[in-house]
Amino acid sequence: MLRSQFILFGDSLTQKSFDEGGWGGRLANEYQRKVDIFSRGYSGYNTRWAKYIAPLIFPGSQKVPPQLVTVFFGANDAALPDRLSARQHVPVEEYRSNLQSLIERIQKIGTKNILLITPPPLDEAARIRHNQQQNNEVSEATSIAERTNSITGQYAAAAKQLAGDLGLPVLDLWTAIQKHESWQSRYLEDGLHFTPAGNKAVFDLLLETLRGAFPHLRAENLPDDFPSHKDIDEDDPEKAFISYA
Amino acid sequence: MLRSQFILFGDSLTQKSFDEGGWGGRLANEYQRKVDIFSRGYSGYNTRWAKYIAPLIFPGSQKVPPQLVTVFFGANDAALPDRLSARQHVPVEEYRSNLQSLIERIQKIGTKNILLITPPPLDEAARIRHNQQQNNEVSEATSIAERTNSITGQYAAAAKQLAGDLGLPVLDLWTAIQKHESWQSRYLEDGLHFTPAGNKAVFDLLLETLRGAFPHLRAENLPDDFPSHKDIDEDDPEKAFISYA
Repeated sequence: MLRSQFILFGDSLTQKSFDEGGWGGRLANEYQRKVDIFSRGYSGYNTRWAKYIAPLIFPGSQKVPPQLVTVFFGANDAALPDRLSARQHVPVEEYRSNLQSLIERIQKIGTKNILLITPPPLDEAARIRHNQQQNNEVSEATSIAERTNSITGQYAAAAKQLAGDLGLPVLDLWTAIQKHESWQSRYLEDGLHFTPAGNKAVFDLLLETLRGAFPHLRAENLPDDFPSHKDIDEDDPEKAFISYA
Repeated sequence: MLRSQFILFGDSLTQKSFDEGGWGGRLANEYQRKVDIFSRGYSGYNTRWAKYIAPLIFPGSQKVPPQLVTVFFGANDAALPDRLSARQHVPVEEYRSNLQSLIERIQKIGTKNILLITPPPLDEAARIRHNQQQNNEVSEATSIAERTNSITGQYAAAAKQLAGDLGLPVLDLWTAIQKHESWQSRYLEDGLHFTPAGNKAVFDLLLETLRGAFPHLRAENLPDDFPSHKDIDEDDPEKAFISYA
């Protein structure tokens, strides 16, 4: 395989990124014929659990390390410790330290281009509606959100600060998305996961951040694999392929 | 990497398959967390040129061969030998023989599950409009289509017959798409490439064909990589990961 690899490492916001119009699929389209985009998204995972799988996703045995990795966790870590999704909760100090471990693992196998993505903002009213539907009841437990936007913001701030400390670029989705009008209903389908419009917004922000942080990885700076059909001499096609053989 | 690989091998109809709502992206979504979907689509390529790159895309050195390969060529081979896209033309007998070579290469590296896809039908009126726009002129050359639906149908028939002779499953897109009302305007954007609705139709047909031909490869029959977050004991998470270490 001639193409380099980008790996998208994260939770459900990454696992679902190939949904119709999803940000992962859009990235694969942006890099068609240039880069293989691997989704390594694990629904429900927090950074504590991600640490167990990171050595297997980023094995030292890989001859050519991924050229780019996005690290996109925090939405589950930020679940509150005394509510419905308590089991996913990770304290913010540990979240920061786990994120750092994940990044060190990725750097250890030789990947230099790492982008941290903060959790997106959260719409508590929509979470309450979602939880009541999911659990098919209105109870004390489902009448308060299992995550809050302000607490999620603390995790976003921790990720952003860590990126600054490590000299890594970061996409602060929590802040960027809240600048858009009606982000709650336009960009989030259940208060947490992205609508098609939300996916488009995430992709646009991601692409802008990637292009700024890693100009050498812009699609137009990477070669297509194999010659353009326009460069193939129909009377002597072999000529165009000799350098690849 | 724990996941198996599906490779989509073809021309622009494969290269563009991660467009918004594209059939390749939809397949990646269907197999999220189970299979890595690789697009190996090369815009403008015919089977004659594809033969040069097949040994590099399907190298004997790969320890685990792709679990599934789709082979989707013919739209360019079927370009007429005396019109605008003459350089892409490959005679139908050679098309069949090239397809067979490509399949043999894929079988040689150990891939058992191969699906042939015929070229889709073609809308000549839309091609004429497209060519006149592209070339910015109405001339003798742009007033007749560079491909015709009936000739493309001969290539589709050849691919279908080859699949029968080799005992391989085939998705006859040329026939299947023409069963839909207004396929020309609903499914094709320039008489040849798929609209979002066309991509959806192709994906639905592809999935139905794959599920019928390869029941063991249905998404529900393949494991997720790594445990579901619901199976992780929050008080002893390591337990869930021991079998993977």
